[in-house]
Amino acid sequence: MAINAEKIGSEKYQKIIQAATKVFAEKGFYNSKVSDVAKEAQVADGTIYLYFKNKDDLLISIFEDSMDHFTASVQEEMSEAHGPVDRLRRFIRLHLELVREHPDTAQVLQIELRQSSKFMKEYAATKFRDYLDIISKILEEGQGLGHFKKDINPQIVKRAIFGAIDEMALEWVLMKKKKYSVDEVAQQLCTMFIDGLAA
Amino acid sequence: MAINAEKIGSEKYQKIIQAATKVFAEKGFYNSKVSDVAKEAQVADGTIYLYFKNKDDLLISIFEDSMDHFTASVQEEMSEAHGPVDRLRRFIRLHLELVREHPDTAQVLQIELRQSSKFMKEYAATKFRDYLDIISKILEEGQGLGHFKKDINPQIVKRAIFGAIDEMALEWVLMKKKKYSVDEVAQQLCTMFIDGLAA
Repeated sequence: MAINAEKIGSEKYQKIIQAATKVFAEKGFYNSKVSDVAKEAQVADGTIYLYFKNKDDLLISIFEDSMDHFTASVQEEMSEAHGPVDRLRRFIRLHLELVREHPDTAQVLQIELRQSSKFMKEYAATKFRDYLDIISKILEEGQGLGHFKKDINPQIVKRAIFGAIDEMALEWVLMKKKKYSVDEVAQQLCTMFIDGLAA
Repeated sequence: MAINAEKIGSEKYQKIIQAATKVFAEKGFYNSKVSDVAKEAQVADGTIYLYFKNKDDLLISIFEDSMDHFTASVQEEMSEAHGPVDRLRRFIRLHLELVREHPDTAQVLQIELRQSSKFMKEYAATKFRDYLDIISKILEEGQGLGHFKKDINPQIVKRAIFGAIDEMALEWVLMKKKKYSVDEVAQQLCTMFIDGLAA
């Protein structure tokens, strides 16, 4: 992406990201036009192109911006946690809470993002890997302290744990009426994973 | 879908499904035309419309056909298994093996299907729910026999387990070079889930 750090931090950049998130969530990525985003953000069409190359760039920027937000929230939570078991528990709960609190972002990440072949096949997703690495670091810490099994492979298991949380998040996004609460789902996942990892 | 059971069972129907799977996996769903599928299947364009309403119907039919295939394979495997722990182990391994053996189908299910907003939002996916219910039945059987924790909710945990397996399958589809073998991944998931569920 050609935009610089100064632009990313700016109020207008964030305003456009928020508008694009709302528009993509409501109309779908394919049916949305850059001009719809401009209208929602109350800026001129040309302004969007000062910050973003095209519609795909907007979508990828929503992804990167929300990964930054998720990672920052999780890292703050991690600093308050006591040990790897507590960290894993908090990670699972916080991810589910973030999905619940940001339904439009969740809709874009869970549904619209996967409609971009460009994103799925070509984008390196460094920020996503960084997010997954929070899980593998918790697992490695737990192995080091003797809490978690030595024979689990953190590189495989981090994706499995993320996949389980992500599937619950997808169900939430797709279902208008939520069958289960964050508390219930977090409790079920934590019980299963923490006992499953225990040395 | 308007087509009848006789057509679904026919050789030509299966030939078109296979051609569509190949074309969608290679060109992507959005870039594919019904005429590309006809060419691959070596039938006239009009023949496709005797069996399928449109391109979306083709995509949904690939999904339904592969769910039938997955469910039949899993149920055959289940009949050979001894008890719920062995059944869960076999389910996890077989799903991963089916993904490995059918890379085009996996590509369509994992990537292309999610590009259809129609599918993600409107389609009831009864066959997918039936597939997930194989997992919840294993969990309930395990609870009944005292092998699995009474306080796990099979309706939540079935999706979490599916999500974990599905995420590993997605990684496989996206990565040209496979980092881990089916054996390794199945082993890791089984260890974690079976110990995690154990009463």
